[in-house]
Amino acid sequence: MFEETEIIRFSLKEGAAGFKDKIVREVPFTIKVNNEEVSTLLASPSDLKELAVGYLFVEGFIESQSDITDIVVNERSFFAGVGTKNKITPEQLQKNRVITSGCGRNISFYNAEDFKNVLPVDSDFKAEAKTILGLTAEFQKKSETFRETGGVHSAALCEGDRIISFAEDIGRHNAVDKIVGGLILKKIDPKNKFLLLSGRISSEMLLKAARIGIPIIVSRSAPTDMAVRLAKRLKITLVGFARGSKMNIYSEPERIVMKEGKDV
Amino acid sequence: MFEETEIIRFSLKEGAAGFKDKIVREVPFTIKVNNEEVSTLLASPSDLKELAVGYLFVEGFIESQSDITDIVVNERSFFAGVGTKNKITPEQLQKNRVITSGCGRNISFYNAEDFKNVLPVDSDFKAEAKTILGLTAEFQKKSETFRETGGVHSAALCEGDRIISFAEDIGRHNAVDKIVGGLILKKIDPKNKFLLLSGRISSEMLLKAARIGIPIIVSRSAPTDMAVRLAKRLKITLVGFARGSKMNIYSEPERIVMKEGKDV
Repeated sequence: MFEETEIIRFSLKEGAAGFKDKIVREVPFTIKVNNEEVSTLLASPSDLKELAVGYLFVEGFIESQSDITDIVVNERSFFAGVGTKNKITPEQLQKNRVITSGCGRNISFYNAEDFKNVLPVDSDFKAEAKTILGLTAEFQKKSETFRETGGVHSAALCEGDRIISFAEDIGRHNAVDKIVGGLILKKIDPKNKFLLLSGRISSEMLLKAARIGIPIIVSRSAPTDMAVRLAKRLKITLVGFARGSKMNIYSEPERIVMKEGKDV
Repeated sequence: MFEETEIIRFSLKEGAAGFKDKIVREVPFTIKVNNEEVSTLLASPSDLKELAVGYLFVEGFIESQSDITDIVVNERSFFAGVGTKNKITPEQLQKNRVITSGCGRNISFYNAEDFKNVLPVDSDFKAEAKTILGLTAEFQKKSETFRETGGVHSAALCEGDRIISFAEDIGRHNAVDKIVGGLILKKIDPKNKFLLLSGRISSEMLLKAARIGIPIIVSRSAPTDMAVRLAKRLKITLVGFARGSKMNIYSEPERIVMKEGKDV
């Protein structure tokens, strides 16, 4: 994930000096499906298989692990070739290509027509506030050093009182797609898990979580208003500003057990 | 930029309570050129005219302010209609549509062929390290409250010892595009300015700066390795970890005056 490079370190007191520093890597990762180029993502070169599968799932190219006939990932040339049972239709590629956005490749969902494919999360899973806060602290610690030095985003999936998967990427989207890809590859049930995110929550995170079926999203940062509206519509519990012993709950609070053994 | 919403605030000590909180807004902003839909960006609803113009410039749809024949921005329905002297070619739209990425809509530049259109920045502008650090602190202060509550990114343009423009957005890219759009609309010379960014620097920021011709980029966060390589290739001075009295210089250090009146 890192590369070493020669830099100049300057301080007003001590002046300039040469220095060897670690820099976080960023690579162009190309995903082809049945030899058709689908996308090139700028990503951190880790968990590329998970990233390819998560991306294809979130973007609607595959529905489950069983849609994948074969997958080749080259971790050196940053390429994934995925074979799928069904051919990719020109419409799928077109849809994916029609609208790009700053940080929102899922923007196509904002057409009412696309929305019908994203269903509310149907899960009566509950998690204790105490557990969520404890895991958030653990997650925070896990990501901190790396974020400080490398400026990457983290995402983690929790089950019970454990973090069961953890991913990092220079892209907020990629970190979540890596988690989603892992869920699909390992055929893990998402319905009783919750997602921890290091950064702010914009609408796309909600769409990703809804598409895979994760019922709770937790971040130490803020959500946007569109994220909150989507959370309500998609029946996802959205928790922001989870820090220390506090959290803000923006939607579906009934999934958070706030006192020992009973709900609010 | 904000909306108020009813949330539940929970603390382990005090339990749950209803609360009215400010949430940062996120809107889908559609840009049409000569009635052809070019893109829908997820953005913060401020400086939308600058965002439209900056986006079209950075993506290669326009070359300067004089390419624009008319521009209509609706700040309520989040729409910009831009008329340009030249028609948009299907190739331009296609190019823009071919490759989407997590947080990297400029990814098309990563084809060698596209690269020939991005020239190194030709500027013998120099800035004092002391001035840069002072303005970084001012910028930091300016963005802090908002970032804390809203989780947005900031970008600013500096001339001499002053911040001359400042933009915020939920998208890192959009914040920079707003600055670029302002430069183009006001026909400001970018060659003797420097750019301050609140977040980490990935490759796309370098391409944006090169395209408009800004010679120095400064952030309090880390750059990626690809950003550093591009900075060298595009002759842009890249400064990271600018905090307090310190900074790291990754490329073209000759533009930074590190001691009173003379270079290193």
